[in-house]
Amino acid sequence: VKALTFDTGGTILDWHTGFSDALAKAGAKHGLDQDWAGLANELRRRSLGLTINMGEHTPPEHNHDDSHRMALHEVIVENGLEAFTPDDYRSIWWDAPHSLEVWPDFSAVLPKLRENYICASFTILSYRMIIDTAKKNGLSWDAVLSCEGIGKYKTLPESYQTVAKFLRLEPHECCMVACHNFDLDAAKRSGFKTAFVRRPNEWGTAGPPDPEPNPQHDIIANDFPDLARQLGILIN
Amino acid sequence: VKALTFDTGGTILDWHTGFSDALAKAGAKHGLDQDWAGLANELRRRSLGLTINMGEHTPPEHNHDDSHRMALHEVIVENGLEAFTPDDYRSIWWDAPHSLEVWPDFSAVLPKLRENYICASFTILSYRMIIDTAKKNGLSWDAVLSCEGIGKYKTLPESYQTVAKFLRLEPHECCMVACHNFDLDAAKRSGFKTAFVRRPNEWGTAGPPDPEPNPQHDIIANDFPDLARQLGILIN
Repeated sequence: VKALTFDTGGTILDWHTGFSDALAKAGAKHGLDQDWAGLANELRRRSLGLTINMGEHTPPEHNHDDSHRMALHEVIVENGLEAFTPDDYRSIWWDAPHSLEVWPDFSAVLPKLRENYICASFTILSYRMIIDTAKKNGLSWDAVLSCEGIGKYKTLPESYQTVAKFLRLEPHECCMVACHNFDLDAAKRSGFKTAFVRRPNEWGTAGPPDPEPNPQHDIIANDFPDLARQLGILIN
Repeated sequence: VKALTFDTGGTILDWHTGFSDALAKAGAKHGLDQDWAGLANELRRRSLGLTINMGEHTPPEHNHDDSHRMALHEVIVENGLEAFTPDDYRSIWWDAPHSLEVWPDFSAVLPKLRENYICASFTILSYRMIIDTAKKNGLSWDAVLSCEGIGKYKTLPESYQTVAKFLRLEPHECCMVACHNFDLDAAKRSGFKTAFVRRPNEWGTAGPPDPEPNPQHDIIANDFPDLARQLGILIN
């Protein structure tokens, strides 16, 4: 394996806390009390649905920022949140995802991994989300390979095949790293190696919908230091 | 301006020394004596010609690594270098450009610029060339926006327009940084700001073919510390 390609939303970034906090903050301004954590998960579920597999039959007409915007609109309408102002709205669909916090086990491990592998963000998130969150958290990727630029979104096979082609590697020289079976299974079907990293808190206290790694993955790790150790990299 | 987009071959990387040395080394193995610096420039001229404006009418069928390979083949045939082995051949078209040295004025300035701007490599070079040369020289880009992924190469207007779109910025919020008028002029036509950075040694002792900055550029700088100063950034 010469390259690690990282799912970034969920696996690297804590979207749940970011969206929950932004929703709660907007709600508090208007004296609203709702299950903000549940609405954050609903926002994620819907925005994923609006993005996954885009480009299968026609070129994508929007990116994942747009999916956040559209999904939030639905959540607002269906949950009686019309008191939210345009500023509130933007703080949730743009500001929050562009300033997500990195999970605390990753920042120190990434530079060690970069000494040994090409480490690229390979994500359905927009270029600008990865650029902004990397800057905020002091992460440096070797490259950002966003499905926004590929024009074929995960889990379409062309998405994985194109990343291997851009890296001038065979698929088996690339290892997809994610906390999601759906992403890893699709990578595996395109010939990638796969590494499942557990993220039990990705969906907050609700727990992730698909937490158990499929046994076919080449590596199953509890966190990023564990992944590094399994790759033979010394971590303090 | 919120983003600086950097031409990378020539402006950031010293291709002339890399290709000259690789050609001379292969030549020495076979007891050949030629104008290696001149052949390096010929290789650059031809590979540029095979890459610039690709994708105008049909999707690109090769990337800039392939252009290096094809241009080298021509240079070998036309200059009686058939003694070169397949290993020599690969050391010139792949190894040399993937291990180019960064110009010495850039490495210390990039992190300072990144504190204030999105700093992306925006280049006709392949993704893998930028990844490999960044790793070798310890550079970290916020993103690599290779024309290989855009499918429209400089100087096509779609190339610049797509980069602004990927960055979710207006063109006038982007500044193209290059030592080449042809790139900057095209960026300007798409609404970018432009910064010319002089590289008098880009073509070795032959001197660059178009060294004088067009007066329309927003910034004209002698080197990267000078560019940073003109952007109001303190450099030691």
